[in-house]
Amino acid sequence: MAKQIPSDSLVVRALAGDNAAMARLMSRAEAGSAECRPALAQLYAKAGRAHVIGITGVPGSGKSTLVSTLTLKLRTGGKRVGIIAVDPSSPYSGGSIMGDRIRMSELVNDEGIFIRSMATRGAQGGMARASLEAVDVLDAAGFDYVIVETVGVGQAEVEIARAAQTVIVVSAPGLGDDIQAIKAGILEIADIHVVSKCDRSDANRTVSDLKSMLTMGMAVGDDRLWRAPVVPTSSVNGQGFEQLIECLGRHGHFMRSSETGQIRVRKIAEFRMLKTAEDLLRQRFTNARRGALAAVSEQLAGRRISPYQAAEQLLDGINLKGTP
Amino acid sequence: MAKQIPSDSLVVRALAGDNAAMARLMSRAEAGSAECRPALAQLYAKAGRAHVIGITGVPGSGKSTLVSTLTLKLRTGGKRVGIIAVDPSSPYSGGSIMGDRIRMSELVNDEGIFIRSMATRGAQGGMARASLEAVDVLDAAGFDYVIVETVGVGQAEVEIARAAQTVIVVSAPGLGDDIQAIKAGILEIADIHVVSKCDRSDANRTVSDLKSMLTMGMAVGDDRLWRAPVVPTSSVNGQGFEQLIECLGRHGHFMRSSETGQIRVRKIAEFRMLKTAEDLLRQRFTNARRGALAAVSEQLAGRRISPYQAAEQLLDGINLKGTP
Repeated sequence: MAKQIPSDSLVVRALAGDNAAMARLMSRAEAGSAECRPALAQLYAKAGRAHVIGITGVPGSGKSTLVSTLTLKLRTGGKRVGIIAVDPSSPYSGGSIMGDRIRMSELVNDEGIFIRSMATRGAQGGMARASLEAVDVLDAAGFDYVIVETVGVGQAEVEIARAAQTVIVVSAPGLGDDIQAIKAGILEIADIHVVSKCDRSDANRTVSDLKSMLTMGMAVGDDRLWRAPVVPTSSVNGQGFEQLIECLGRHGHFMRSSETGQIRVRKIAEFRMLKTAEDLLRQRFTNARRGALAAVSEQLAGRRISPYQAAEQLLDGINLKGTP
Repeated sequence: MAKQIPSDSLVVRALAGDNAAMARLMSRAEAGSAECRPALAQLYAKAGRAHVIGITGVPGSGKSTLVSTLTLKLRTGGKRVGIIAVDPSSPYSGGSIMGDRIRMSELVNDEGIFIRSMATRGAQGGMARASLEAVDVLDAAGFDYVIVETVGVGQAEVEIARAAQTVIVVSAPGLGDDIQAIKAGILEIADIHVVSKCDRSDANRTVSDLKSMLTMGMAVGDDRLWRAPVVPTSSVNGQGFEQLIECLGRHGHFMRSSETGQIRVRKIAEFRMLKTAEDLLRQRFTNARRGALAAVSEQLAGRRISPYQAAEQLLDGINLKGTP
């Protein structure tokens, strides 16, 4: 076996600003490697200073373009920006064949920008855990902003965006009914609403529709102290990005100084704990495959026991404290 | 407390064809009620005869319309059809404001059709477990077909469609690039490809693009014994539904008679076992909230321990065999 750089050494390099070391730590986190857990714990302990921004929206809402433009604007202000893309349609994931090429090359050649796309398929769960560990790596390494972009469809994906200090939900003019219906469901998680593509003539309608929905209380969050602003933007002419950055600053301050912010920090911690525990359990199941798992799943497939009975047997039968 | 009909009695009624009893069992399953577990176990033991069909596709692909038309066609043949919709854009979920009204009313007034939409938000996980328990209810109650419709974006949602005997992936002409990119990722799970909206003039292009992708091996599954057919359909003029039903019959037979089918049955059992175990674990965490959970999450929020340490403490600290 070729010798591998220990994760602890990668931490030292990552903290010194080595982007390649950060990328390797993220790969190990994604693989669920036990060797890197102490390293991730070190990073977690050092993290907590970055402004973590979750950006979500339905496919076609222009999330990726917004992320690109926002990143360039923040960068102009001298800030270091990390991007974690949990979105199969993101250009960073190699999903999108057309578009965003020029803007992307502007991003990737800048040392103050780090882009990572997370696998969203075949990950056998663990996507939330690994994405948030990637955030820790960038946060600990001193990035000022960490943007987590997720597609706003799918329970797991929306949950990840929600585990950020500030959640931006992106809307856009000209989307179909099917898409609009999905969108309606995620509006309530927004700390800031962005309406993208506001160079389009039909954008005013989208902005006013959204504002009236919010006024009608259809999508108002439960926090009366923060009223989510609606920011119209255009990546074509740069409209709205100053206002967006101002709103981000204001919301970041609100989160740091309010009880609401403290409650969210605890909720995020709880979410991470549960996701990590689920993931540990899944890893242990997988390790036990040859033994208990195969026998129990065989009985279940033959309908001799029920899924609950199988699950109980599994929870009871596996030594949760160590190797099976 | 008002007296509640015991779940065992609901099972008797459900097996006798009482749709209201089925709906109540599904609600209890969705709520994760421990009282109904023996009832669900009875249903699971009796299930296994229905042809369970997972239908998935990106938003705008016309899944719901396809499900409606397919259901009406199967119904014409005298079959009982159940629909479980795990799709926020489904008209059955009340998501879609426009469209499908007429077709829907044809469905809901027929005793041989059962439609249930599952919550996809706020479900705190458990969506996969509850959806598959709803399938068991209909399967045990003698429905010939159970269709599970999920939106083909989002890891959790795609996994649920995959836990069916036959998986249909729906494509459609005229979708945007963002959507197409997502679509590419789910093609590989198809046992049958449907291209919907084939009354449109641009549909031929979609069919030939899809066929050439499949020929190029870009999205071929790993099973050489079954080559997923491409079926062009139109709910406007009824094109393709005979062929689709023929393909379903052929694939159902293949699954019942081949080793591939046996392997899938075991994989589905394993998936259900893991999802149920995760869900049990989550329920026990929630029950323990006042004690261990709060203390551990507090330490985590303060970054005094790492997410892995918190998860380990939780797995070790909670009495997994009973109440905390």
